[in-house]
Amino acid sequence: MSQLRVQSFTLSLDGFGAGPDQGLQNPLGVGGREMMDWMLHTREWRKMHGQDGGETGADNRMAEQGFHNIGAWILGRNMFGPVRGPWPDDSWKGWWGEEPPYHVPVFVLTHHARAPIEMKGGTVFHFVTDGIQAALQRARAAAGGRDVRLGGGAATVRQYLQAGLIDQLHLAVRPVLLGSGEAPFQGLDLRSLGYHCTESTMGERAMHVVLRRTP
Amino acid sequence: MSQLRVQSFTLSLDGFGAGPDQGLQNPLGVGGREMMDWMLHTREWRKMHGQDGGETGADNRMAEQGFHNIGAWILGRNMFGPVRGPWPDDSWKGWWGEEPPYHVPVFVLTHHARAPIEMKGGTVFHFVTDGIQAALQRARAAAGGRDVRLGGGAATVRQYLQAGLIDQLHLAVRPVLLGSGEAPFQGLDLRSLGYHCTESTMGERAMHVVLRRTP
Repeated sequence: MSQLRVQSFTLSLDGFGAGPDQGLQNPLGVGGREMMDWMLHTREWRKMHGQDGGETGADNRMAEQGFHNIGAWILGRNMFGPVRGPWPDDSWKGWWGEEPPYHVPVFVLTHHARAPIEMKGGTVFHFVTDGIQAALQRARAAAGGRDVRLGGGAATVRQYLQAGLIDQLHLAVRPVLLGSGEAPFQGLDLRSLGYHCTESTMGERAMHVVLRRTP
Repeated sequence: MSQLRVQSFTLSLDGFGAGPDQGLQNPLGVGGREMMDWMLHTREWRKMHGQDGGETGADNRMAEQGFHNIGAWILGRNMFGPVRGPWPDDSWKGWWGEEPPYHVPVFVLTHHARAPIEMKGGTVFHFVTDGIQAALQRARAAAGGRDVRLGGGAATVRQYLQAGLIDQLHLAVRPVLLGSGEAPFQGLDLRSLGYHCTESTMGERAMHVVLRRTP
């Protein structure tokens, strides 16, 4: 059965999924670069960016797992880009250049309709205006039996969690303090939502925890 | 200069320092035993309990550091025992039996006066009824130039943090979900309180982070 998976979702020591003041300069907010540090050294990350080398330890293994058996992605609007409100034109095509690292259909949650965008390498961005359930249905259909990866950001993960729709979450907890920002789990009782830690690994730069839902 | 240090303070993945329903059966609340698991395997813990053996990796090293150069302790009332309200009698002498693992003066915060208790092995419990500042003054004086260790629990750590009195915190973050309980840092912005991560180590069963205050 196709699962909805969150992978490589990075959490600060103080529980934030992104720092304050997200925008074009700081896609993950102030401190966001430091959050991603565990990923940036991995072979998987370098490979995604057409580079050789990189580390091959536990951090890399967890980064790699995030791409296994994924047939479609779902992204929140803010994860697709810094543009807010109605799309002013069609110029913004994501943070990732001409050939984004998805290579499968990507469903972007938005309140503002927009025609699909076909990118190089198999990524097609579809814009979904009728909510998280509809996005999941469309992503499942597109995934052809493989899993759907929920890319984030923090607010989107929170919505799907509250709706009980996430089957598996991989969190990478980083030893950094953000102080403020988006706290995806604050006020949620993950245990009573049915989640348990089923796996944990100490990586080179992050503690990795996999949560699964046991209904 | 004598520092006020929190050491080996265990935090769950979801930010709790203790689980729900703390009491005689579950001093750290439901799930508390699982929280302490990183400590229970260490040589330091076994030594404290008169046993041989135990692991000697990063978890052990961090547990050991917590006892270096400590001249006095401060404990919240709940950390001293499950008794609430006025002391019914003098029978409760802490969780630790006749010879507690402190071996120095220990200042217990309480609203209810009680005469000091001298235990075997150098531990003397003093009961302080005039607040956290007074307890720190008395502990500093007793420590004779060495550091003061703030043992917890979560509410006590929070009070000292908010008052800007903690110089160093060592947190051991465990890959467990408690779901609910005491969240010592919730709603506090540790960065704006002046804290930064100055050290991190991936242990065998916990991620260790040391926060220091830079005024």
